[in-house]
Amino acid sequence: MNLKDYVASIPDFPQEGILFRDITPLLDDPKAFKHAVTKLAAFAQEVGAQLILGPESRGFMFGCPVAIEIGVGFAPVRKPGKLPRETISEKYDLEYGSNELQIHKDAIKPGQKVVIIDDLLATGGTVAATIKMVERLGGEVVGCAFLIELADLNGRQALKDYKVYSALQY
Amino acid sequence: MNLKDYVASIPDFPQEGILFRDITPLLDDPKAFKHAVTKLAAFAQEVGAQLILGPESRGFMFGCPVAIEIGVGFAPVRKPGKLPRETISEKYDLEYGSNELQIHKDAIKPGQKVVIIDDLLATGGTVAATIKMVERLGGEVVGCAFLIELADLNGRQALKDYKVYSALQY
Repeated sequence: MNLKDYVASIPDFPQEGILFRDITPLLDDPKAFKHAVTKLAAFAQEVGAQLILGPESRGFMFGCPVAIEIGVGFAPVRKPGKLPRETISEKYDLEYGSNELQIHKDAIKPGQKVVIIDDLLATGGTVAATIKMVERLGGEVVGCAFLIELADLNGRQALKDYKVYSALQY
Repeated sequence: MNLKDYVASIPDFPQEGILFRDITPLLDDPKAFKHAVTKLAAFAQEVGAQLILGPESRGFMFGCPVAIEIGVGFAPVRKPGKLPRETISEKYDLEYGSNELQIHKDAIKPGQKVVIIDDLLATGGTVAATIKMVERLGGEVVGCAFLIELADLNGRQALKDYKVYSALQY
């Protein structure tokens, strides 16, 4: 199965010059969605994941089924103001402006092996910020897995000290 | 298994007077998360779901694993500006102000049997708006399933023409 057949490419979204990779056809196809989850889950299991982290909000779409599939817990990485208990935060730069992400302070147990799952690896900013939070809480990032990797944006370079898997590349 | 043991109750979040039901302990516990997904999936299968819809963003956490579990597709219900192709929208009132939700116009096939899954049934506004969009596109809402129902807020009344399931009630 070629997962690229289930990704639509939308020019100039969300802004001019961006070619947006739309995964909704993949989600809509039970076999393709299951196939993608199975691939991500196989990587997570192989690297010994004890917890899956997924960034808001498309990270939830893959992180949660993978956690269920391999029988480990899931913790959400969210924008500020969404998590109700004590959090830690990391800011990271975007081309214009910056973003901030949070996780619950008790989301990670010291020494816990964590795999971060998201739909897309672009420049790697989201995942790099997530890794910092995991490590500040004493967790070990044993891998990062993505449905799609945009190879031109060099996200692997930003994550060069970590195992990276992507189910498909552009 | 009593799923309530995995829900934390946080007073005055996100604002004073609100008792927030925090599902992150449930997500963190593989058995509890799996148990919740299994219950929601059993309902979805029983009512004949051919597609799962989940509202942004906690709806993704349950809707996606349920879709995988029963072997049907998933379509996201999102805030404006997030879906890249042609959408339809519904606005609905909140206590202060209003919200708007969107789905892709091609997300629903005419006659398709749809189950809407979210983490929480409160007043039912989100789900009622989602139902309207499904029906405008010719789909049939065969059920709505929630992890948590806040019974005092009468969401079932707003959804009285539909089958409603909740895994736990407060």
